[in-house]
Amino acid sequence: MSMVKLTEYEGASPEVKAVFDDIMATRKVDWINNIWKALAAHPPTLKRIWEQVKDVMGPGGRLDPLTKELIYVAVSMTNNCEYCIQSHTASARKKGMDDEIFGELAAIVALANQTNRLAIAYQIDVDDAFKPKFD
Amino acid sequence: MSMVKLTEYEGASPEVKAVFDDIMATRKVDWINNIWKALAAHPPTLKRIWEQVKDVMGPGGRLDPLTKELIYVAVSMTNNCEYCIQSHTASARKKGMDDEIFGELAAIVALANQTNRLAIAYQIDVDDAFKPKFD
Amino acid sequence: MSMVKLTEYEGASPEVKAVFDDIMATRKVDWINNIWKALAAHPPTLKRIWEQVKDVMGPGGRLDPLTKELIYVAVSMTNNCEYCIQSHTASARKKGMDDEIFGELAAIVALANQTNRLAIAYQIDVDDAFKPKFD
Amino acid sequence: MSMVKLTEYEGASPEVKAVFDDIMATRKVDWINNIWKALAAHPPTLKRIWEQVKDVMGPGGRLDPLTKELIYVAVSMTNNCEYCIQSHTASARKKGMDDEIFGELAAIVALANQTNRLAIAYQIDVDDAFKPKFD
Amino acid sequence: MSMVKLTEYEGASPEVKAVFDDIMATRKVDWINNIWKALAAHPPTLKRIWEQVKDVMGPGGRLDPLTKELIYVAVSMTNNCEYCIQSHTASARKKGMDDEIFGELAAIVALANQTNRLAIAYQIDVDDAFKPKFD
Amino acid sequence: MSMVKLTEYEGASPEVKAVFDDIMATRKVDWINNIWKALAAHPPTLKRIWEQVKDVMGPGGRLDPLTKELIYVAVSMTNNCEYCIQSHTASARKKGMDDEIFGELAAIVALANQTNRLAIAYQIDVDDAFKPKFD
Repeated sequence: MSMVKLTEYEGASPEVKAVFDDIMATRKVDWINNIWKALAAHPPTLKRIWEQVKDVMGPGGRLDPLTKELIYVAVSMTNNCEYCIQSHTASARKKGMDDEIFGELAAIVALANQTNRLAIAYQIDVDDAFKPKFD
Repeated sequence: MSMVKLTEYEGASPEVKAVFDDIMATRKVDWINNIWKALAAHPPTLKRIWEQVKDVMGPGGRLDPLTKELIYVAVSMTNNCEYCIQSHTASARKKGMDDEIFGELAAIVALANQTNRLAIAYQIDVDDAFKPKFD
Repeated sequence: MSMVKLTEYEGASPEVKAVFDDIMATRKVDWINNIWKALAAHPPTLKRIWEQVKDVMGPGGRLDPLTKELIYVAVSMTNNCEYCIQSHTASARKKGMDDEIFGELAAIVALANQTNRLAIAYQIDVDDAFKPKFD
Repeated sequence: MSMVKLTEYEGASPEVKAVFDDIMATRKVDWINNIWKALAAHPPTLKRIWEQVKDVMGPGGRLDPLTKELIYVAVSMTNNCEYCIQSHTASARKKGMDDEIFGELAAIVALANQTNRLAIAYQIDVDDAFKPKFD
Repeated sequence: MSMVKLTEYEGASPEVKAVFDDIMATRKVDWINNIWKALAAHPPTLKRIWEQVKDVMGPGGRLDPLTKELIYVAVSMTNNCEYCIQSHTASARKKGMDDEIFGELAAIVALANQTNRLAIAYQIDVDDAFKPKFD
Repeated sequence: MSMVKLTEYEGASPEVKAVFDDIMATRKVDWINNIWKALAAHPPTLKRIWEQVKDVMGPGGRLDPLTKELIYVAVSMTNNCEYCIQSHTASARKKGMDDEIFGELAAIVALANQTNRLAIAYQIDVDDAFKPKFD
């Protein structure tokens, strides 16, 4: 029940097809998932978001691909985004996550949501020892 | 400006002192940070939360200590908990995080917060291919 | 699957009917949407909320009706309220929103959710130049 | 550092003074707290919000005044609203809350924030037995 | 559509069965609701969360059982957790909540969500009179 | 108290200077605000975020510059991002916002946060009439 008509590859504009092609090539898959079909209703957003996802979540950098996905899923759980939890849990499973790692991830996310509210409820001042120091 | 008077080690009840001692022994430090001094105003909460933190964030399990801290900080950034960001960033730095890893972490957290809202804004249905399958 | 039985116009109390009548007259429609049928289970809330919506979202003031709806939808996307996104997107479309404006709206909402978390993640101090000045 | 100049009683318009007078009379205090001084920059909002607060949080109804404040503070802790936590905790203390009740409140708020994320993380379907039934 | 296979009592490990038995005994019911069947995929989390829920939400302490449930539901409404709203509303109804109390609860939760954003929007400083004082 | 050392123009790398120069040229200002100085600690993020902000918030598209800022501030108020509220309120004021428009904006944001929670609290089903229709 998306808010705009999904754009299928057939009949897409060349601009949209170029992004769809890059998504499939980068991910080595032969289909396009729904979020990109929806964003295609606004091509500048489609292009901008895909380029970011490719850049931030792709290989390179200091964090390994599974860790990146775990962080992404942690945020999505906190924000209650069903699509994001389901799609990035599927990605994380491809990169090695199993039920046990999922369980540890969910436990940390839940704990942080709990302790975040305790720190807020009690209005705790940051200890000097934790504050960043710069010369 | 905490909501309750902070409990210092001197003058704490034996019940509270036992938790404070365990925190310092477990973390190999000789001081208690503010959140525990505040939670000490309600000893059952102090004990219950500390035991959880020790259990979930401590060694053991499949995720390494730095990854656990990164997930914890990711949630704290999403929830805007200043105390939690500062205290767990300090922990993560002790476990090897530097400015570059912090930058990658923040970039993923920010990206997920962005794409979460796009999936929600467009009310995207989960693709069948992403749904978990069980026998 | 609402948490209370929906109240239909037939069989509603005079107090509830009066609000339902005002909703239909104000909006020039001949039906009542589900949220009002649910709030009717607690008549003081039905009346108070309707009066506020009529006051804040109705004509008058400096912001035009479409801008008001866009702001309303922006909040609903950030909060992940499906009912609110769907119902107020329908209102915005009546007031002139098309897929392109929806795309721009979603892009701004998503961007702000991203940059909000960067400002929080890095714990940025407000620049003096941005602070409000009063005589 | 409010976003608008605070309106003091002296020099306020008659419209604003009338609301300020009602706040002081209703609460049996002789001063106005900052949120009303800020909302006075937009008199229709000042009046509308005060009337709601008086109506929803005032005496009457099935919930007693302390329970109302506890619910209000629970939401404010979850949303991380410092002003709201501080001002309504002060109100709750006037109505009988002490450190122990505050501790129980914070513990429930923190627990619910934790278990909310577990239910979301695991994408749990609602059991039929919990669903509301209407004839 | 949970993210892990639900664990049924039959075929569960002794460790999981022990928790399931305690849940049924404590609550005086003869069935296990879905969240526990999902958490059973990660037994340490199942045990830890159940023990907390039993401890925080169980009898004892200063707040009565219905007030505890109302606070829990208030948080779940603010966080938009469908499972939590449905399951704890069912619990609250068992403990005496009816449509009218539900209406008052929802009205307070909604009001606090509104006024929280006003305090944040206007960046209101906490009045000195509200700040906690300790000797 | 930012989490990383702020990068000043003097002594910045050529890569960072290029972004700083573009920010100043685009905005016709001669200084750099704190968020960019912080993001400069991770140059790829600095560049990616600035390009997005320039693209999404800049001129062009269907929404006028003030409306874009109002939407941005609405999200920031909902998320409780102090830096974002202050910096984008300053931008909105430059584009014509005064206290009255700010008051209307805050009133809509607050109302939507209220009604969002009512729709969630009552678990309202979307009316068929509101659902998007595509051929």
